[in-house]
Amino acid sequence: MRAACSPTLDMAIPLPRLLHSDRLRPAVATTPPAAALSQDELKRVAAHRAVELVESGMVLGLGTGSTAAHALDRIGELLRCGVLRDVVGIPTSEWAAARAAAAGIPLADLNTHPVVDLSIDGADEVDPALNLVKGRGGSLLREKMVEGASRRFVVIVDESKIVSRLGGSGLAVPVEVIPFGWVLTLRRLRSLFDGMPGFNLKLRTASTDAKASTFDENGAELEPFVTDNKNYIVDLFFEDGIHGDLNLISDEILRITGVVEHGMFLGLASSAIIARNDGMVVMMEKETK
Amino acid sequence: MRAACSPTLDMAIPLPRLLHSDRLRPAVATTPPAAALSQDELKRVAAHRAVELVESGMVLGLGTGSTAAHALDRIGELLRCGVLRDVVGIPTSEWAAARAAAAGIPLADLNTHPVVDLSIDGADEVDPALNLVKGRGGSLLREKMVEGASRRFVVIVDESKIVSRLGGSGLAVPVEVIPFGWVLTLRRLRSLFDGMPGFNLKLRTASTDAKASTFDENGAELEPFVTDNKNYIVDLFFEDGIHGDLNLISDEILRITGVVEHGMFLGLASSAIIARNDGMVVMMEKETK
Repeated sequence: MRAACSPTLDMAIPLPRLLHSDRLRPAVATTPPAAALSQDELKRVAAHRAVELVESGMVLGLGTGSTAAHALDRIGELLRCGVLRDVVGIPTSEWAAARAAAAGIPLADLNTHPVVDLSIDGADEVDPALNLVKGRGGSLLREKMVEGASRRFVVIVDESKIVSRLGGSGLAVPVEVIPFGWVLTLRRLRSLFDGMPGFNLKLRTASTDAKASTFDENGAELEPFVTDNKNYIVDLFFEDGIHGDLNLISDEILRITGVVEHGMFLGLASSAIIARNDGMVVMMEKETK
Repeated sequence: MRAACSPTLDMAIPLPRLLHSDRLRPAVATTPPAAALSQDELKRVAAHRAVELVESGMVLGLGTGSTAAHALDRIGELLRCGVLRDVVGIPTSEWAAARAAAAGIPLADLNTHPVVDLSIDGADEVDPALNLVKGRGGSLLREKMVEGASRRFVVIVDESKIVSRLGGSGLAVPVEVIPFGWVLTLRRLRSLFDGMPGFNLKLRTASTDAKASTFDENGAELEPFVTDNKNYIVDLFFEDGIHGDLNLISDEILRITGVVEHGMFLGLASSAIIARNDGMVVMMEKETK
């Protein structure tokens, strides 16, 4: 496995120089891309590129999900072969903690390390201003805490995650809610977006290993998905994305009693590393977080 | 116990007519007050007065704490002697559920009864605009959910709870926070109020029956108070009350990742029934909730 310990990427695509512009600008790698990569290979390319930003001694925010998994594995490799030393990881979920431990990354928590040097995580959607939707994996609150505490937060995605407007993929924008009174909380969320074209929402249910039971407003039994914080998730769906001022909408969601946090990450990402379908790697960066 | 079933107050103080003014106006009972009541007797006077607003068939929000206890007991009495029928109670805490069950009040939850006719609960502070501080007992989130879902919410307090400005009693304004990363959340709360004269804050610890263990930023072990929702409480203290626009401050608190809810109840109370030290009962009412 010595080959896996190479500090350079196993794909010969140089990391684009980081831009420090006063607005978002993409930098496109100039070397010829490898052809016909699968989605998982694209995720790995973006993840490995991001791991090049990791330095020895850093406190790292460790992301959750299939893209972040490649970053965790790569950090573990670089620790094992001595290219990296003395990093400590703050996992964003129980899943990330287990995966990082398996990869050999020393772990700590935000209480002992409240300032994180660099977080690397995937996202479900990235808009042109580097606002994100995250949390389809269910750990949005911990991700937002760790990434919000980070000096730098690098998002790693394949091209399929790029949207012109948050919610625009048609997939879920998650909201973490307290189990107590969740039906009422869901009703209030419905009222908030009432009239937005094609809006819909529902309690996320557990596909497997249901850990809880509850009843909807019609008395039907549901097996809700339960987060690491023992809360539920209400998923919001928008036919054409979220129209309006995202910061105002964020405040309105957070004002609903019973809402803990939502999956819109507004202004938190410093950079995005995007692996395009043609194999090119694009980095977008904001001047200041 | 037949005497306890009297539908009228055991103290002969008539309920002041409810005012429907366009601003807050106190109505003072005109009959001579009983003299020299203890604080607990004052709480009972206010509670029994509020229970006169309960009608058969109502869905009731059941408050938490020593003042609400008098209301729960009184509702139970009136149910037992048949003055009230067919009420169903939505408890605001595990404590309220147990106390109400002992009093013989049938219970349900917000998921089956998302609209509450009348809530009766105590408060830690009441300001001239009927904004409240609640949650020193630790159940602020459930109280806010139930009382926010109520067509009418009547606050019952003795005179010691009246303040000119929220936080002005010098006692705690509680904030419910997720256990994950609570040290960071506390730091952010500290930053928010940095510079407000005499501001301080601390994690609420369990006086007895500690259910959890955590560590502060210096590594000292703490036994945090744990809410019914399995969260922690950070108590905020203000030497001279909270200065500034309360709604803006509320939004700023709720924007902090890890904050679930705070104990300022802004615009939620419809009326306050205040038992004064001299035995007079004062009712304050807002025209619309």
